[in-house]
Amino acid sequence: MLQDITKELAKAKNFAALTTLFPDGRPQTNVMWVDADDDHILVNTEVHRQKYKNVRRDPRVSVTVIDASNPYHYVEIRGRVVEEIRGEVARAHIDELSTKYTGRLYANPVVSERVILKVAAERELAH
Amino acid sequence: MLQDITKELAKAKNFAALTTLFPDGRPQTNVMWVDADDDHILVNTEVHRQKYKNVRRDPRVSVTVIDASNPYHYVEIRGRVVEEIRGEVARAHIDELSTKYTGRLYANPVVSERVILKVAAERELAH
Repeated sequence: MLQDITKELAKAKNFAALTTLFPDGRPQTNVMWVDADDDHILVNTEVHRQKYKNVRRDPRVSVTVIDASNPYHYVEIRGRVVEEIRGEVARAHIDELSTKYTGRLYANPVVSERVILKVAAERELAH
Repeated sequence: MLQDITKELAKAKNFAALTTLFPDGRPQTNVMWVDADDDHILVNTEVHRQKYKNVRRDPRVSVTVIDASNPYHYVEIRGRVVEEIRGEVARAHIDELSTKYTGRLYANPVVSERVILKVAAERELAH
């Protein structure tokens, strides 16, 4: 189970910095929409993206969810991608995320295929 | 020379996600105050912090500076810590940063010693 503060921040209209690791170990960080279920942080990307290639090879990530109303309030989740979901479920999820953040269904073209990355937390640090 | 957009975002009152690497390669991410000179991203921490220990061992970092007025606008800097500055210069710099972000001199106790980390960019990706 994720901590309540993690779920609360990730389900609200806040942005997350997702860090993945290149083959040589260097970090890559992107600002992302974010979501959570009871046990995982959820991010939604496409399978042609570097971040997806990175987590397929090394599932270790950090996800830092920043309170949009107060950047001194954030939670850092250190963990790993333990599951991915593609197909209609992932396509529907990006519409859900888009609706949360923009009020509209996702209108950008899907270049390759949407994929949900489910991140299990090893550490959750609230600041 | 850093790109103009990087300097502009880092010198304004924006926050950065700094990612460093633990000994086993896992990423750690903190939300930080940030600054820049013409050639480096500057962050200011203390020498007892995990992030400082991490960069002493492995200088590779990512610094993602997010426009406080528009989180879809950010720049990711991938690079490495190439220099550190301690002493009075670092103590004065945290006062400068505090004044930028809070309008007041830095009032928190300094637990160990302030240190400026100078990050040279290998890639700068504006989103």
